Amino acid sequence: MDIPSKKLEQAVFEISKLPGIGQKTALRLALHLLKQETSEVLKLSEALMHMRTDLKQCIKCFNISDSEVCEICRKPKRDQQTICVVEDIRDVMALENIHGYTGLYHVLGGLISPMDGIGPGNLTIDALLKRVQEEEITEVILALNTTMEGDTTNFYLFKKLQNFPIKVTTIARGIGVGDSLEYTDEVTLGRSLQNRIPFEQTMRNS
Amino acid sequence: MDIPSKKLEQAVFEISKLPGIGQKTALRLALHLLKQETSEVLKLSEALMHMRTDLKQCIKCFNISDSEVCEICRKPKRDQQTICVVEDIRDVMALENIHGYTGLYHVLGGLISPMDGIGPGNLTIDALLKRVQEEEITEVILALNTTMEGDTTNFYLFKKLQNFPIKVTTIARGIGVGDSLEYTDEVTLGRSLQNRIPFEQTMRNS
Repeated sequence: MDIPSKKLEQAVFEISKLPGIGQKTALRLALHLLKQETSEVLKLSEALMHMRTDLKQCIKCFNISDSEVCEICRKPKRDQQTICVVEDIRDVMALENIHGYTGLYHVLGGLISPMDGIGPGNLTIDALLKRVQEEEITEVILALNTTMEGDTTNFYLFKKLQNFPIKVTTIARGIGVGDSLEYTDEVTLGRSLQNRIPFEQTMRNS
Repeated sequence: MDIPSKKLEQAVFEISKLPGIGQKTALRLALHLLKQETSEVLKLSEALMHMRTDLKQCIKCFNISDSEVCEICRKPKRDQQTICVVEDIRDVMALENIHGYTGLYHVLGGLISPMDGIGPGNLTIDALLKRVQEEEITEVILALNTTMEGDTTNFYLFKKLQNFPIKVTTIARGIGVGDSLEYTDEVTLGRSLQNRIPFEQTMRNS
């Protein structure tokens, strides 16, 4: 693509580095921005920089935060004895959205993935073990994605956490609410059968 | 969506103003940027601002340019007697990509669209008429999209250009190369029949 301006070319090049955005989309976005007021583009440009430079990680749970300790960790009302371990902050947002979990979180910052060169040392696992040791934790809930990396990480964490006098649980894998058996893959179906629960329990939950 | 940081929320808000980017995608992009080096985010942020503030419009043809007069208008080799009228700079890029057109361009900056409140006065039509009057133009090629707005603008321009001793042409509408008759809509098919050309002409072109 012949872009008639070096400045535009530079902007398109930078935008197209974003995941899922190719050259054509980048050009479309750049031309859209060209039509906007300078103040609008300045707002976007500054918001990106401020986010990158000013955003902190909570020193306790590694959730993103505007202060040293994040809002969730600071809330005294939350159950301080339960930690839910998640891969990244998007999972924290997803779980907060159900408005049903009242414990704390721990953000791993990824999953163990030898293929991508990510080992336990690259994640915040040591910090998690330290929390379990020093705080009065009674339960750690593993809430990782059901991928191979998720299962590997689950297993590694379980092995490490076994040494502490706490309960280690994992979120239920099963058929999604609204899904039909017919279209569910065999592994999920197998697990949902294997991990079946007393019917009374479902009545209590709803 | 509960975003645990005001800075992140601001960035997501600004990114989601871009066309075709919703809140979830904006969050994904923001979190991607959070993982990048600060220098990378700075590059993006600055490229956007520089593009918006430093980019000029060519004073002759309204193409984007890093200088007063764009590269195409400055090239002495190009046919200075032919102007191709297009809606926006993406069309200039598309036409330049075929490497077959050697004339000049004129970027309208939009199409006449009463529904969107865009009249002839909002476009660069006066500047085009001035060019036709003052420069030694022999042909104006109308290369607008085949939409209702495109046709309206074509007609308006044709009426205005009729007063000058020049040839006014429009790019051919017909069946795309590689398309099959069966799946072509009736209007296109009708036009392609109506505007049929001597067969020898197609042999000359290829």
